[in-house]
Amino acid sequence: MPLVNPHDPLNTLKPRDGAAGTDRPRALLEAVEENPDPLLKLAASHVVSSRQFTREELLQLFRLAAQYETTPALMHLPLAGKILISAFYEPSTRTRLSFESAWHRLGGSVMSITDPKSTGIAKGESLADIAEMFNNYGDVLVLRSSEGEAVHNMLENLRIPLVNAGNGIDEHPTQALADVYTLAKWRPELFLPDCPPEKHVKVGIVGVPSRMRTVRSLLSMLSLFPEAIDEIVVISREEENFDPEQRELLEGAGLKLRVVNDLDPVLPELDVVYINAIAWVGDTFESMGEGLNLNRQSPLKEGAIIMHPLARGAELSTDLDDTPHNWYFAQARGAVFVRMALLTTVVRRISAVMDTPEG
Amino acid sequence: MPLVNPHDPLNTLKPRDGAAGTDRPRALLEAVEENPDPLLKLAASHVVSSRQFTREELLQLFRLAAQYETTPALMHLPLAGKILISAFYEPSTRTRLSFESAWHRLGGSVMSITDPKSTGIAKGESLADIAEMFNNYGDVLVLRSSEGEAVHNMLENLRIPLVNAGNGIDEHPTQALADVYTLAKWRPELFLPDCPPEKHVKVGIVGVPSRMRTVRSLLSMLSLFPEAIDEIVVISREEENFDPEQRELLEGAGLKLRVVNDLDPVLPELDVVYINAIAWVGDTFESMGEGLNLNRQSPLKEGAIIMHPLARGAELSTDLDDTPHNWYFAQARGAVFVRMALLTTVVRRISAVMDTPEG
Amino acid sequence: MPLVNPHDPLNTLKPRDGAAGTDRPRALLEAVEENPDPLLKLAASHVVSSRQFTREELLQLFRLAAQYETTPALMHLPLAGKILISAFYEPSTRTRLSFESAWHRLGGSVMSITDPKSTGIAKGESLADIAEMFNNYGDVLVLRSSEGEAVHNMLENLRIPLVNAGNGIDEHPTQALADVYTLAKWRPELFLPDCPPEKHVKVGIVGVPSRMRTVRSLLSMLSLFPEAIDEIVVISREEENFDPEQRELLEGAGLKLRVVNDLDPVLPELDVVYINAIAWVGDTFESMGEGLNLNRQSPLKEGAIIMHPLARGAELSTDLDDTPHNWYFAQARGAVFVRMALLTTVVRRISAVMDTPEG
Repeated sequence: MPLVNPHDPLNTLKPRDGAAGTDRPRALLEAVEENPDPLLKLAASHVVSSRQFTREELLQLFRLAAQYETTPALMHLPLAGKILISAFYEPSTRTRLSFESAWHRLGGSVMSITDPKSTGIAKGESLADIAEMFNNYGDVLVLRSSEGEAVHNMLENLRIPLVNAGNGIDEHPTQALADVYTLAKWRPELFLPDCPPEKHVKVGIVGVPSRMRTVRSLLSMLSLFPEAIDEIVVISREEENFDPEQRELLEGAGLKLRVVNDLDPVLPELDVVYINAIAWVGDTFESMGEGLNLNRQSPLKEGAIIMHPLARGAELSTDLDDTPHNWYFAQARGAVFVRMALLTTVVRRISAVMDTPEG
Repeated sequence: MPLVNPHDPLNTLKPRDGAAGTDRPRALLEAVEENPDPLLKLAASHVVSSRQFTREELLQLFRLAAQYETTPALMHLPLAGKILISAFYEPSTRTRLSFESAWHRLGGSVMSITDPKSTGIAKGESLADIAEMFNNYGDVLVLRSSEGEAVHNMLENLRIPLVNAGNGIDEHPTQALADVYTLAKWRPELFLPDCPPEKHVKVGIVGVPSRMRTVRSLLSMLSLFPEAIDEIVVISREEENFDPEQRELLEGAGLKLRVVNDLDPVLPELDVVYINAIAWVGDTFESMGEGLNLNRQSPLKEGAIIMHPLARGAELSTDLDDTPHNWYFAQARGAVFVRMALLTTVVRRISAVMDTPEG
Repeated sequence: MPLVNPHDPLNTLKPRDGAAGTDRPRALLEAVEENPDPLLKLAASHVVSSRQFTREELLQLFRLAAQYETTPALMHLPLAGKILISAFYEPSTRTRLSFESAWHRLGGSVMSITDPKSTGIAKGESLADIAEMFNNYGDVLVLRSSEGEAVHNMLENLRIPLVNAGNGIDEHPTQALADVYTLAKWRPELFLPDCPPEKHVKVGIVGVPSRMRTVRSLLSMLSLFPEAIDEIVVISREEENFDPEQRELLEGAGLKLRVVNDLDPVLPELDVVYINAIAWVGDTFESMGEGLNLNRQSPLKEGAIIMHPLARGAELSTDLDDTPHNWYFAQARGAVFVRMALLTTVVRRISAVMDTPEG
């Protein structure tokens, strides 16, 4: 083993995935016309659910994310002096650092809560009272909780914007933003008006929509673009995969849904394979979909991309990392930029990075 | 439950308490003449006890706090490049974030210690050695410990200023600053020379002065202004409520003290009701004063204000939140600003925010 | 006990050790000619082992450290907008804060991981995948682990520079930098060409080179300067003190090694006494060298200096703190500055603080 393992001096060692470099975000940037209005409107909302976004808001968020992704270093830091409260009552280093990195890159300060036992909650303090405290201490709250209700209890008294970073099995809207931003970089026309039929895609989702917040939030967001998606195939070994109203809502929005039990037979049809094996149950998690695995021998369609919210387990083999199917690393990378875009929006600093009437 | 719960776009959703807005801090600002000298003098002391302050130091601290509270965003950040060491050997998210928020708003950086088990203490390192370490790493130390002696052991070797954020059952001087700052915004004349008799107040304190550091520190600080306080009524179910010397000191300073066992009979007399139910005992806490509760049915005097150091339990009903008696939220809000004033002072940056001879 | 214990208003209370003030770093600064080239070269490497440095790299690092140590406050902050990921999978407040303080003083932001249980590792995530995550989130990774292999597993996928902050019993190269920087301030000529024989030193090391990473890394680094060291005396009660290849490498580099069992008989010969009693074993530590203690009665040579990586236990009596033998506090102080120099180097910001061709 070499004692010195030189890191890459000129960034010539490319990310080992199918989406290296800035060509793709630049193409996305050029495909969408800048318009601050949807983001100025979004700035008046807490970010609780992926169902709350409009197509226009998503496109402008993705455009701003792409702008950040193609800018090596910001000339001025639009959030200097602003404070993010990063409250992770359910532990998650990956999501926490993604948010905090996004905020730091914009020049802001961070206060983290990573140990639920050290908070007033341990003394029996209510979430409504904690919200009052947060009003005084920060400019935005990022909240992760294993309780689905926590977000809503917190909102009772909250006067600063809240961004839901995962609440129980309910929602994880910024993960969905990262997921759909990845698709938008891969194939921008999917999200633009009049996507031609030959560009439509079939999306496979290995997971359980009723029990995985990532899958639930992704499906809700995709339901805004039903005309570009030929079909969504849920691959699952469970009996029940949808909440009753969930399936109704998605189909009502125009998504065509199918459920199958096995992955390999359907794989050659799929343009996008989204795989996730972890469902959160209270403070811990459960692995699902045993036997539903992807590796280099899997019969993937040429040009198909694989996505995964990470962290991964045995369901996604590392032997795929060096193939062009690997878009999961790009997905994690893009998550920082799309969170930068969202955070800039909710703390009303859009005028610092886009041309606005009042800017 | 609405999926989207809009946060308040224009801050028209007022804090639900009797002290919203900036009118009151502005009035305080105007009532006190600016004078940097007491703060320049205070800058030479560690902040260990609420007994160490002079009236003049308090008034100038409150004036500077009010200046911060009425300034929406600082034009320049007086503590850029300065480092706060936030050492919470006894967990307290509320106090920790209040200090860290204060420091971040002034532009400084923070290093937090929230897990005693990860420190050298676990390897048997002495507090004196840890103090030597802190000398090298930061510009100010905020220390919370369940051991009363910890502050004093740390001071042996410390060459950077220390601010006591609660040491056992001994003191919590910055909580007292926040408490008295609240009173100063409510009724500035109490703290000015020649407070007219009709403005004098009767203060009730639900708690145990000998066993609650918040109450101990508050009483010490109030003893600087005995002429404005008609009486202090301690409401408690305990047999012993004062350390022998404690009562002597307070009465020696001119405070009139009375102890009663029941709250409701005395409530109609009280202009200020300070309620706290938690006494710290080592690493955990004890609830006291069962049966001594406040709610909307309590016979509160018109115009009386309620204060609480928070977090609250059953002793303070949420049905009081929307009444003008609620000054506990204002108290928590003001705590950030008074800590900003204190921290600016102890790191000798007063000249950055006040006109000083050398500034 | 005084209620108010004034901290030192004008820094007239000197550090209680033999290396107060800025005279010594200033002398070092003047003894070494500035040359950015070795640091520009070092910037292409991860910092894994103390064996990877050249003499020229060390001298320029120490020169830059001395430059930082003699500069009271930086005029501009060369790392504003840069993010340090501080991943301490093995707890260590002292080392963590030393790195974070160094980074904050340069104007950068920090994201800390102090609880291994909250990371993806707990979900079975591989270090290689965590490295991919870190690529997206930060500009440099400081890694502490109780597993010697962790550093190397992380490097597989890492594209940002890594600095090893201690990996099992293997290495702790930045501690060695702090140690040798201390020696360089004490006697700069030791590290310059043609050190005259009367300046040569005999170094005693109380510890076990094969089982203590601090000792291992220090010896490797000292082996770059064999001509200035008359002898290295290892004082140990263990049977086996060296890995077989370790002794060979050190002697091959020209170091003269001797092992003795007792401290006092050899003490009068030693110019430098390095003492460490803690060897890490997995997540916990073992005390070694019982009976090998230093105190004011120890027969220390006049002018001899004592070094210790701290935290200390019973092996180093506090009654030595006020003697000129105490260089261990200077060693801890200097650690911040030498880490500032190293971090400036690995994130390629040398041109911001030195005259460089491209700067």
